[in-house]
Amino acid sequence: MTSFVACALSGTLRSGARMCSASSLRLVGLGSSATRNFTARGRWSSRVTGLRHVPPGSAGGVASGRVRKGVFVATGAAVLLGAAVAGVSHFQRAEMATRVSGVDMEQGDIAERCKSFMSPPVTDIEVLQRKSGDVSARMEMLIMETQAEFCKALEEVDGGTFRVDRWNREEGGGGISCVMQDGKVFEKAGVNVSVVSGYLTEEAARQMRSRGKNLKGKDGKLPFIAMGVSSVIHPKNPHIPTVHFNYRYFEIEEEDGSKQWWFGGGTDLTPVYINEEDAVHFHSVLREACDKHHPRFYPAFKKWCDQYFYVRHRGETRGIGGIFFDDLDSPNQEEVFRFVRSCAKTVVPCYVPIVRKHLNDTFTQEEKDWQQIRRGRYVEFNLVYDRGVKFGLATPGSRIESILMSLPLTARWEYMHEPAPGTKEAEMLEVLRSPKEWI
Amino acid sequence: MTSFVACALSGTLRSGARMCSASSLRLVGLGSSATRNFTARGRWSSRVTGLRHVPPGSAGGVASGRVRKGVFVATGAAVLLGAAVAGVSHFQRAEMATRVSGVDMEQGDIAERCKSFMSPPVTDIEVLQRKSGDVSARMEMLIMETQAEFCKALEEVDGGTFRVDRWNREEGGGGISCVMQDGKVFEKAGVNVSVVSGYLTEEAARQMRSRGKNLKGKDGKLPFIAMGVSSVIHPKNPHIPTVHFNYRYFEIEEEDGSKQWWFGGGTDLTPVYINEEDAVHFHSVLREACDKHHPRFYPAFKKWCDQYFYVRHRGETRGIGGIFFDDLDSPNQEEVFRFVRSCAKTVVPCYVPIVRKHLNDTFTQEEKDWQQIRRGRYVEFNLVYDRGVKFGLATPGSRIESILMSLPLTARWEYMHEPAPGTKEAEMLEVLRSPKEWI
Repeated sequence: MTSFVACALSGTLRSGARMCSASSLRLVGLGSSATRNFTARGRWSSRVTGLRHVPPGSAGGVASGRVRKGVFVATGAAVLLGAAVAGVSHFQRAEMATRVSGVDMEQGDIAERCKSFMSPPVTDIEVLQRKSGDVSARMEMLIMETQAEFCKALEEVDGGTFRVDRWNREEGGGGISCVMQDGKVFEKAGVNVSVVSGYLTEEAARQMRSRGKNLKGKDGKLPFIAMGVSSVIHPKNPHIPTVHFNYRYFEIEEEDGSKQWWFGGGTDLTPVYINEEDAVHFHSVLREACDKHHPRFYPAFKKWCDQYFYVRHRGETRGIGGIFFDDLDSPNQEEVFRFVRSCAKTVVPCYVPIVRKHLNDTFTQEEKDWQQIRRGRYVEFNLVYDRGVKFGLATPGSRIESILMSLPLTARWEYMHEPAPGTKEAEMLEVLRSPKEWI
Repeated sequence: MTSFVACALSGTLRSGARMCSASSLRLVGLGSSATRNFTARGRWSSRVTGLRHVPPGSAGGVASGRVRKGVFVATGAAVLLGAAVAGVSHFQRAEMATRVSGVDMEQGDIAERCKSFMSPPVTDIEVLQRKSGDVSARMEMLIMETQAEFCKALEEVDGGTFRVDRWNREEGGGGISCVMQDGKVFEKAGVNVSVVSGYLTEEAARQMRSRGKNLKGKDGKLPFIAMGVSSVIHPKNPHIPTVHFNYRYFEIEEEDGSKQWWFGGGTDLTPVYINEEDAVHFHSVLREACDKHHPRFYPAFKKWCDQYFYVRHRGETRGIGGIFFDDLDSPNQEEVFRFVRSCAKTVVPCYVPIVRKHLNDTFTQEEKDWQQIRRGRYVEFNLVYDRGVKFGLATPGSRIESILMSLPLTARWEYMHEPAPGTKEAEMLEVLRSPKEWI
């Protein structure tokens, strides 16, 4: 089982189109519990489009409420951010000057913050408290917060409740899978956290670590930790798009105690019909988060996203993209963590306003059928190309149900289906065949 | 494009679980035409089970009617049949004494026989007439006849009509895809023929030919021909099982004019609910065909089938199996061709009596839902494991619609679905988790 992150990690140093999604993090073991505090939330919006944020009526969760406040606040502190953008181009560190948030989003007692989570975190709260300054502990808090914020925002929209499965991995760590199925708004919504750890052989570590670095382990073994939050939401109404996001962190310790670490992630949208305003909103929120860290992040990661989510045998992208990055490891953990945090904080404002906007849209059977055909394509991408899914399925002992919760509840394959020219369906296909710049 | 059969061929010499299905034959080009003569057929049956053959009311198609007559007639001529059963065990030629049909099934004017096909054959009729003694021409006639017999038997049951798409492959050859979608009985039924030819590099030929043989081509290039018939039928009623079959032939010519050739194929059943009588009928018809050629064929190819159609990440087989073989190349073309012909001639009697038996079975929404979940598993096998599909999708210029016509019209993925113990659904799963010997 030590090799289970091999793909997730090995992908990180290669070209964009070959990157792993963090589905490979969802692994092994099974258990359940559900310690939850639901807190009423407000709605999110983007300044760029007409979609607006309606502030929460109540104070909301302490932790995530506090977190959100700082999301778009930029200070004047310019720092150098060197990013390894494999597959696009490696940015020059000298060009990476950017602004990062100066507001500490992570204040507050850890035990108190954990109360707003969907479940107790994978790592013991005492350990998280003891290591509260470490990026691994801060990242675990971030992915748990992201899961809780997103689940609660969706529950508020749907009226339904997420099923929460907490599972343990025999070799170390575990995860929390939250799934809402056949809800009022969402056909299938999955939000998964995993935090797994153990030992890798030098061979496995070499295969997974980018740029062919040879890592030296104590007695040939290297401790590692891999964690992430990932989500796929399939709504019922064909006018509400599917969304996917994933933010992840990897760490390997060498013999001399030094650590190799890197981040990956992204958020992307898969509409059934093109809605220009939605697309602009979605990409604008992502660009806003990226721009706070470097002006080249958004264009580079947008391109990488289009490349990664390409269904080659159909000659189409899976959706209208968003951002995707991997192997981000410079200039330092703090700066990259802050960038990833900015991204993770966009998942609600990126998506929920779009859901609310189309909640009451009417649709025809033909529109529903077209949605089902697009769902079929989604399945094709996930089973044929997604490196995380492929690796997860190939790994004995994986928690298959967490890996495959990304599949829609229903899908359809029609032989030789081709929309008539000039239809809304043809318009959608055109965009998938020639990805657009939305902003 | 010369490498397009690489997987189909390369798989043939390896272990059973790594064999290619002939889906990789369905490639490239697109065109259409539909020259068809429908002839009323009788129903097929097995002597072994209670399912019976009702003779046709009319004379039926000249060619296939004649063909069928001889199928189960064995003469006293015992011949040695040495079979390369990779992945199971290589039979000793000395053990391969078996009876083969003494009745020539292929008499009659080729042009006349072609009239009963779903479309004119891929190869010009004049060429087929000129080469009528060659196995490649005889195999093309056999796969066209198999397609026509099967399609017409299904049309008779359903009342619907197959759409016939004839397509050309730019580099040589083409195919005929027959699809009936959303019929009365069949949700999606696809029967595909392809006959493709061209040149392979020595490197590609080495990779595809089993047992690591080095093949020498003229100026480094080796002419090849690959052909096959394949089909997947997904009925609407959950009490009617899905069936799949595929019979294929490969030929590569070396510099000195000598030919490397081999056959592959198989038929397997995927029920939604276990019906012992159906399973026994299906396997009995296959065993009957196998036993005429060698008593060890059925047990070996039954095991190979269970190994090949294994959905590893679920720990289940796709269905209740049947037979699967590949790389069959001894003792000589004639004997192996006759065995493949015997198998191809079972596709109607294997399946159609089962369809007719359950035509009017009533079913509940729960049974339909379970069918949809099993369809999801079918999609998982086809997209994740089937080597032919994987290779086809990875090959630029493939005719994707012919490769993916094996996917069901509709499928479903429920999170953490597990049938309650003691239910019919649990009984089905049990069989998929521990393949049974049906006869």
